[in-house]
Amino acid sequence: MTAIQRLDIGPRMSQAVVCGETVYLAGQVNKDVADVTGQTAAVLKQIDDLLARAGSSKEKILSATIYLADVKSFADMNKAWDAWVSAGNCPARTTLEAKLAAPEYLVEVAVIAAK
Amino acid sequence: MTAIQRLDIGPRMSQAVVCGETVYLAGQVNKDVADVTGQTAAVLKQIDDLLARAGSSKEKILSATIYLADVKSFADMNKAWDAWVSAGNCPARTTLEAKLAAPEYLVEVAVIAAK
Amino acid sequence: MTAIQRLDIGPRMSQAVVCGETVYLAGQVNKDVADVTGQTAAVLKQIDDLLARAGSSKEKILSATIYLADVKSFADMNKAWDAWVSAGNCPARTTLEAKLAAPEYLVEVAVIAAK
Repeated sequence: MTAIQRLDIGPRMSQAVVCGETVYLAGQVNKDVADVTGQTAAVLKQIDDLLARAGSSKEKILSATIYLADVKSFADMNKAWDAWVSAGNCPARTTLEAKLAAPEYLVEVAVIAAK
Repeated sequence: MTAIQRLDIGPRMSQAVVCGETVYLAGQVNKDVADVTGQTAAVLKQIDDLLARAGSSKEKILSATIYLADVKSFADMNKAWDAWVSAGNCPARTTLEAKLAAPEYLVEVAVIAAK
Repeated sequence: MTAIQRLDIGPRMSQAVVCGETVYLAGQVNKDVADVTGQTAAVLKQIDDLLARAGSSKEKILSATIYLADVKSFADMNKAWDAWVSAGNCPARTTLEAKLAAPEYLVEVAVIAAK
């Protein structure tokens, strides 16, 4: 059996779960900033940090699912995404509108990466 | 090539697919109960059963995506989740609101687990 | 470290990412057709093509997530799905309603497959 490693284990979820060479992150949100571009940048920074601690990095992201509270913010989200994503190493991506767990959350990003 | 094993194969989907050491479950729903806490508990029981048949268990869930027909039921869903999830072995989790395939469905849970 | 292969690499995303024996596709959409059944068939054809180039095929799909702009089109989407899916090799599937990146998109399908 492949060992499973979990990071930032809470009572309800872990922020990252590593199994073999695959890393699953919890959907990342951040309400410290009030606009979509800023929230996206903050969320992507959290993803960088979690991936680093899991032994991965944005260059190794396989799949990203982006949830927008309002799909009209697609372009504003992409401003932060395009500035961040690793050229030549972009993940498979899906973007959709969804109401998120708290009204302050404008964007949530879940990724699967390789170690 | 790694062998693929499928459980409860229907004409449209399988309820579980096992490939190597990874188990993918179809989104689980249950309309036998009329409230979110009860539906979540029923869905999590279905997940337990499918994982057991696939050679896995809730302690080995890597990732869970929870779809709520109404995100205002977040706390009621979590009542069942918190009572069920394995302390110290929580998965990466993402929760969002989404209209589901039938109006009776209040919650749907999709998981990826290790064997 | 397992090598990562990416297909149709754009500035924002790749259409397919292969890591070891697992293939992740970007959410596939197609607005060349105006109805859900037609869009679903077009999207499934794109999935066939991407999987073939990645060394996989629909018989090896592990998981599919289907996003419908209007869940009332569930039956129309399934007309194309049921005609396409490989009998005996159906994936684990989750279907939900979600507003998609452009209003012309009626359906989006994201899959994870084995090579």
